[in-house]
Amino acid sequence: MKVVIVGGVAGGASCAARLRRLDETAHIVMVERGPYVSYANCGLPYHVGGVIEKESSLFVANEETFRGQFAIDVRTHCEAVNINAAEKTIDLRNVITGEVITESYDKLVLSPGAAPIHPDLPGIHLPGIFSVRTVPDVRRIREWLAASNSLSGLESYSGFQTVVKKRAVVIGGGFIGLEMAENLVHLGLDVTLIQRGNQILGPIDVEMARYVERFVAQKGIHIVLNDGSAGFRQTEKGTLEALTRSGKAYPAEIVVLGIGVQPEIALAQTAGLEIGQRGGIRVDDQMHTSHPDIFAVGDAVEVKDYNTGEWTLVALAGPANRQGRIVADVICGRDSRYRGTQGTAIIGLFGAACAWTGVSEKTLQRRGDTDYEKVYIYPNSHAGYYPGAKMLAIKLIFRKSDGKVLGAQALGLDGVDKRIDAFATAMQFGATVYDLEETELTYAPQFGGAKSPVNFAGMVAAGVLRGDMPIAHWHNLGSGLLLDVRHPEELAVESVPDAVNIPLDQLRSRLDELPRDRDILVFCRSGQRAYYAVRLLLQNGFNARNISGGMMSQSVFQRQETVAGTLY
Amino acid sequence: MKVVIVGGVAGGASCAARLRRLDETAHIVMVERGPYVSYANCGLPYHVGGVIEKESSLFVANEETFRGQFAIDVRTHCEAVNINAAEKTIDLRNVITGEVITESYDKLVLSPGAAPIHPDLPGIHLPGIFSVRTVPDVRRIREWLAASNSLSGLESYSGFQTVVKKRAVVIGGGFIGLEMAENLVHLGLDVTLIQRGNQILGPIDVEMARYVERFVAQKGIHIVLNDGSAGFRQTEKGTLEALTRSGKAYPAEIVVLGIGVQPEIALAQTAGLEIGQRGGIRVDDQMHTSHPDIFAVGDAVEVKDYNTGEWTLVALAGPANRQGRIVADVICGRDSRYRGTQGTAIIGLFGAACAWTGVSEKTLQRRGDTDYEKVYIYPNSHAGYYPGAKMLAIKLIFRKSDGKVLGAQALGLDGVDKRIDAFATAMQFGATVYDLEETELTYAPQFGGAKSPVNFAGMVAAGVLRGDMPIAHWHNLGSGLLLDVRHPEELAVESVPDAVNIPLDQLRSRLDELPRDRDILVFCRSGQRAYYAVRLLLQNGFNARNISGGMMSQSVFQRQETVAGTLY
Repeated sequence: MKVVIVGGVAGGASCAARLRRLDETAHIVMVERGPYVSYANCGLPYHVGGVIEKESSLFVANEETFRGQFAIDVRTHCEAVNINAAEKTIDLRNVITGEVITESYDKLVLSPGAAPIHPDLPGIHLPGIFSVRTVPDVRRIREWLAASNSLSGLESYSGFQTVVKKRAVVIGGGFIGLEMAENLVHLGLDVTLIQRGNQILGPIDVEMARYVERFVAQKGIHIVLNDGSAGFRQTEKGTLEALTRSGKAYPAEIVVLGIGVQPEIALAQTAGLEIGQRGGIRVDDQMHTSHPDIFAVGDAVEVKDYNTGEWTLVALAGPANRQGRIVADVICGRDSRYRGTQGTAIIGLFGAACAWTGVSEKTLQRRGDTDYEKVYIYPNSHAGYYPGAKMLAIKLIFRKSDGKVLGAQALGLDGVDKRIDAFATAMQFGATVYDLEETELTYAPQFGGAKSPVNFAGMVAAGVLRGDMPIAHWHNLGSGLLLDVRHPEELAVESVPDAVNIPLDQLRSRLDELPRDRDILVFCRSGQRAYYAVRLLLQNGFNARNISGGMMSQSVFQRQETVAGTLY
Repeated sequence: MKVVIVGGVAGGASCAARLRRLDETAHIVMVERGPYVSYANCGLPYHVGGVIEKESSLFVANEETFRGQFAIDVRTHCEAVNINAAEKTIDLRNVITGEVITESYDKLVLSPGAAPIHPDLPGIHLPGIFSVRTVPDVRRIREWLAASNSLSGLESYSGFQTVVKKRAVVIGGGFIGLEMAENLVHLGLDVTLIQRGNQILGPIDVEMARYVERFVAQKGIHIVLNDGSAGFRQTEKGTLEALTRSGKAYPAEIVVLGIGVQPEIALAQTAGLEIGQRGGIRVDDQMHTSHPDIFAVGDAVEVKDYNTGEWTLVALAGPANRQGRIVADVICGRDSRYRGTQGTAIIGLFGAACAWTGVSEKTLQRRGDTDYEKVYIYPNSHAGYYPGAKMLAIKLIFRKSDGKVLGAQALGLDGVDKRIDAFATAMQFGATVYDLEETELTYAPQFGGAKSPVNFAGMVAAGVLRGDMPIAHWHNLGSGLLLDVRHPEELAVESVPDAVNIPLDQLRSRLDELPRDRDILVFCRSGQRAYYAVRLLLQNGFNARNISGGMMSQSVFQRQETVAGTLY
């Protein structure tokens, strides 16, 4: 059996290695257009910033490993240019010599990946404008930055000397855009990130994105929302300017495009393979394309969203690797199937993390699904009495009718990955919020609390569903009386206009100050004291609801109204 | 309704607070023998070591919180001394004045905890010998250590000056023993830990405990195994000596007892409550004792082990808190039930962690259960190409017949809690190793790998069950040929006697050197290359098995034979 694999990173490389493990006699050809196979795409931005010092660290396995350990016929600088599906042949072009040869195959596996979107804007081809996909891309960026030390930059007066700070503009606030922005800040650049939509990190909800925007802004990234890229020009001094739709011009010594990626389907189209409505190669759950002898995996394919059943594009390494393994299994006669993509992801930013799994609220809204509720909690990353605890912000989305966990989003300086991993694992099994209440997780003061944030999220959500704690949200309060049960000292720092203040420990003795004919919307700092107050009020015959997440949530819902379109 | 709660920490305090949330009108009396309620037991060792600087940090909530926010009748220095179950009264003694009063109750909740075992050994009451249970215990230890600065200690020559190092002996290698040992090391003491059994950390398997023993020994704890405490004596100089059964004497300025705890059942016995065979108060899954109006929670009760169905004692804060909540629910007419204890726990030691969940191999062996297999893996805590990755050691135990995950044990410097939490969450839902293969967890280079260690454990285990990778273990090799597929350079560092070395990348061309009539037992550093080799050999008609965990596992199985009874 002869298998040709197009693409030597992530999905392709995983497929090749597993294929050899399953079939010692197969002839396996793996072709890669670039100079390297099996490199760490996810590490590329960190090599720009110097966090990963050596380029060689990016190579997970090299050609020699594939040849020596796996007896795989690896060919780099080799681009697949045409498929003849009827003849079961593929044309391969040596990108250095231009020579084209034709290889036959019994099975063909496409792992071409997705290319950075490179919109057809004026000036997009000017020197100094980069995408980030391959090791050579990163090498060019590093060389450009080294060379541009002689370029003029932003002058700022710092103490006794005038510092010339180079400026970068990053277009797009997704994974690559944000990771590149962070790494350019590390290098000392003045970084502006321009985002066409009203939030960064599209997969999460806008109020959660607000925390991330605020955090990275504090770390030095200027975030511009609601303004798209309109092109680029070069000034007489040689500096680039990134132009936006609103008419602004942001000068920069370097521009990085992180607008997104699109599946590479040109090769698939030569074979007449079916392309889905999202623009990816359409595959079944065994990664068969519309042609029985051709498989496709990774960023180039459309997969089913496990939460919604919709077709979706996922550009992540984990799914690509799993799909590569599945293809190897299927080629070798095994019944492996891809179960869809749950949508678990994480991004690290300046020592913090933002992570999510499952479905977002905006996706539910887009689908017209109203059978959901959400809670916001702000627990400590570990026991508060042990030094170093950091606050987490967690949004849990669950089905109102049966408590099934639908999605979770979290961010903070510590322990974000751990909690989203627990949510993601529970969701794999269709967990409800009642299950989360009971999950038995590790606890020692360095690592968590006797009630884990996962338990706590479950308890709060279950309290809502059981009717113990009716809730309200800042964006949908109605006309109730706002009751702040914090201590007056806390109000001095930050308060909500028109809210009545009765501290929790005075509430029992001051019930006669509250109306019995209005909703009472209770809040505190993060929701716990408000919960106690709501219980107290409900049992005393008041109509009370807890504003989920209290002041901690208020700050981002408020920002939702104010930051759009502004630079901060 | 009047509820009296005996014990104001963990289970008792959780019960009181939830009771108030559910019933605003109940009369809730919470009595606590000591001076403080709701303190952080789990933080006590860290206050000894000064990691938690202020004693006040240990108080999670104080009496005022319980009175002001929850309207709970809190009484400290108040010991419950007798229950009259027929009359539904309890006698409460003021431990300062000695006065005894009798309180009636409708429902009684016992949360008396478990007392450190204080064996009746010669000299056990000598000054300088301490247990660690309460804030006053820790205060006494700190005062003793401060005062003993004038005592003589171990003299050692360090550079140009003679350093007098105080010595500590810790009896027992469980949570408290190890945490106290670490904290005494932090304080500069020379610490010896004496363990009666053949390993520390009883809940985990001996070979996994070996890693922990080796690690803490490197950090300065002298571990003595297989030697029990025989008593204590005071020398003429005023120094203590801890005597062991083997006849040794370990001088010390301080001795800490961490032998274990036993449920406090004296009060329960005054009510004639049923005591289980493990010595704890017997309760049902709603925490009812044998008397319908009396509940019990926390370290004093026996609970069902979720894995084995056996009665067990668990002295952990998480289960105690959950049980306290359940009692409040049940008293208020709700149908909450305790689902048993899965056995998830963690200990932090010198920046590392050791954690586990589910059942251990030795428990399976004790129960005569042979329907299990295990794998050892040694993945990186995050992507190897990103700086700071640390190796994890993970043991996964699973059912041979259907792949159900039975238990996991892990240790390392980073990410141990996260992985055990994921295993624990999956096990809550009866996960199989095949499920673990598919779990979609967070991946970015700072946080994990495209294949998480959780996925990886599932893949390796599933590979065993599918027959793709027959395995062997160092303790049960049989008479096969040992084949080391590492690079010769690696053998120079560490090798196995009598093993044949053929590096993986030469294996295909050197197959004729291997016998076809013997088992070939393949190993490498941690098992991956050996897996590739096993696949290659099996498909070429050899009988090959992978020795799980390779050299990484070998080192601890070897130690199992050599360290017993020795000091290291």
